[in-house]
Amino acid sequence: MGGPPPLSEFDLIQRYFVRNRPHSATTLLAIGDDAALTRITPEQELVVTVDTLIAGHHFPLDTSSEDIGYKALAVNLSDLAAMGATPRWFTLALALPEADPRFLEGFANGLFQLADHAAVELIGGDTVRGALTITIQALGSVPSGEALRRSGAGVGDAIFVSGTVGDGAAGLKAKREGLDAPELIARLNRPTPRVALGQQLRQIATAAIDISDGLCADLGHLLSASGVGAEIALLEIPASPQLRHHFPSASEQQRLMLSGGDDYELLFTVPKSRCGQLEQIATNCHTPIHRIGTITNDSGLTLIAADGGSTTFDPGKLGGFDHFRQEVL
Amino acid sequence: MGGPPPLSEFDLIQRYFVRNRPHSATTLLAIGDDAALTRITPEQELVVTVDTLIAGHHFPLDTSSEDIGYKALAVNLSDLAAMGATPRWFTLALALPEADPRFLEGFANGLFQLADHAAVELIGGDTVRGALTITIQALGSVPSGEALRRSGAGVGDAIFVSGTVGDGAAGLKAKREGLDAPELIARLNRPTPRVALGQQLRQIATAAIDISDGLCADLGHLLSASGVGAEIALLEIPASPQLRHHFPSASEQQRLMLSGGDDYELLFTVPKSRCGQLEQIATNCHTPIHRIGTITNDSGLTLIAADGGSTTFDPGKLGGFDHFRQEVL
Repeated sequence: MGGPPPLSEFDLIQRYFVRNRPHSATTLLAIGDDAALTRITPEQELVVTVDTLIAGHHFPLDTSSEDIGYKALAVNLSDLAAMGATPRWFTLALALPEADPRFLEGFANGLFQLADHAAVELIGGDTVRGALTITIQALGSVPSGEALRRSGAGVGDAIFVSGTVGDGAAGLKAKREGLDAPELIARLNRPTPRVALGQQLRQIATAAIDISDGLCADLGHLLSASGVGAEIALLEIPASPQLRHHFPSASEQQRLMLSGGDDYELLFTVPKSRCGQLEQIATNCHTPIHRIGTITNDSGLTLIAADGGSTTFDPGKLGGFDHFRQEVL
Repeated sequence: MGGPPPLSEFDLIQRYFVRNRPHSATTLLAIGDDAALTRITPEQELVVTVDTLIAGHHFPLDTSSEDIGYKALAVNLSDLAAMGATPRWFTLALALPEADPRFLEGFANGLFQLADHAAVELIGGDTVRGALTITIQALGSVPSGEALRRSGAGVGDAIFVSGTVGDGAAGLKAKREGLDAPELIARLNRPTPRVALGQQLRQIATAAIDISDGLCADLGHLLSASGVGAEIALLEIPASPQLRHHFPSASEQQRLMLSGGDDYELLFTVPKSRCGQLEQIATNCHTPIHRIGTITNDSGLTLIAADGGSTTFDPGKLGGFDHFRQEVL
């Protein structure tokens, strides 16, 4: 019998995405004009990233709207973290099959929960009707000349990873298999972008990348960009107790950790002379950091197994999650 | 059998979107790292906009890939133009049902044709599998304090529009009705963002907006933002000879011009004392400019018909194209 009239794009934006709170001092104009207007200080460079999430592809179809909103922003903040940037602003392009207030309210809640935590401001957006597709572009700033790139790793640098690896893929597998593993599923749905860590690494790390495609694939990107090789000790790769508990098979653990993807931990290289500073940084950021290997002047990635045996891969051919070829569900 | 293996996301980006040409001096890092890195000079502010185009919704399903690529960027550059900004960079999030090389080649051709013309650089992107959805976020710069907003129109200011109005909607109607009207269809598929004009208006115009939702709707946005009213003479609204030829009915012309949308002309207000400068600006930009009315201190929009009769609308209730509620095809 009718029900309320459908929400217009204007209504949608006003109701769910325009917030009654002061803008940051560097946001001169946010939602409501042809474009947003912002200011960065002269000593800063602008860092720009974009990521799209598609339902059933980048997250399972039954993911809650809160988690979808949170994750869509998290994966972009993770890219800024991997550059050592301070997140500043983001825009949201949202395609929705229908203007479902329940979905939108949850989505906005999850999105702004992380946005507020990271002090990043929504300054523009576009809503259209279509299959659920979320594109966020995030803008950050970094002191001139200090951005972390993938390309600076030097021979002899130690290789580190934050947090634990493989939990994202383990969460997806746990969900599919109906396991009671809420911590792993939370790691899949609510990854923690390592924003504070990235900023603290600016004058320490020689190269950095975030783990979105899988440890081996992303390390491969870093090695290719830096023109170096690496030796990684499998036993040193940090796995969470939850991953070990739910997936006790060693080969399964190894697969999840090496090619899982969706972890959003930082993988970075540090010259030996600066490694002593990392303990304090880990404490400051409340983020565990583990050394997993060393940059070499070989061209490949060598994995040292528990029994001391080693396997070498061509970094250009390392597997990983390809969002164009594969489907999550 | 089989055919070539499908292109990975990496292959796609390398083949169609990474170009072998020098970056601009302010692009420190483009595609290939976790994020792009750019620099703007201290006297500039950053202008940020985002727009999504969905097949069958923002363009007819049979639109050529070249035109889709062109238009996706054009609508974003039009937003920058309406702010008086100089386009600098853009990112592209592209959802594709399949990695079809023929589509991608055409799309990239159309996209870069306009990008090169406007001297705007692709610095980041994401490609995913999904229904054809194109989200572009464009970044521009503007001298500090000089951005054109919607909110500055003052009582007595003259109201101007660039080019001709209604051609986008006329092109869509011509296409649907199978009319032989290539100029109108070209205006639908390849709108001209008024970038040079926007920049020249920076110290002249008090308010500006681009016409994407329709003349009345967009004028309504400007009036609401400025807290003023307007009086528009229907006879002064510029229509193209092609529109008049293919749609001879006066009421049809009026409908197309007032609520058509998809024109991407600039609608702007100028104090009477500065109107004398517009002739030179129109010449400089090779863009016709017509005065269509005056800002008033009433709260509504009054349309003066050819017979002198007038109708007043509440600007908050002016119709126009709502990309969330309506479907183009």
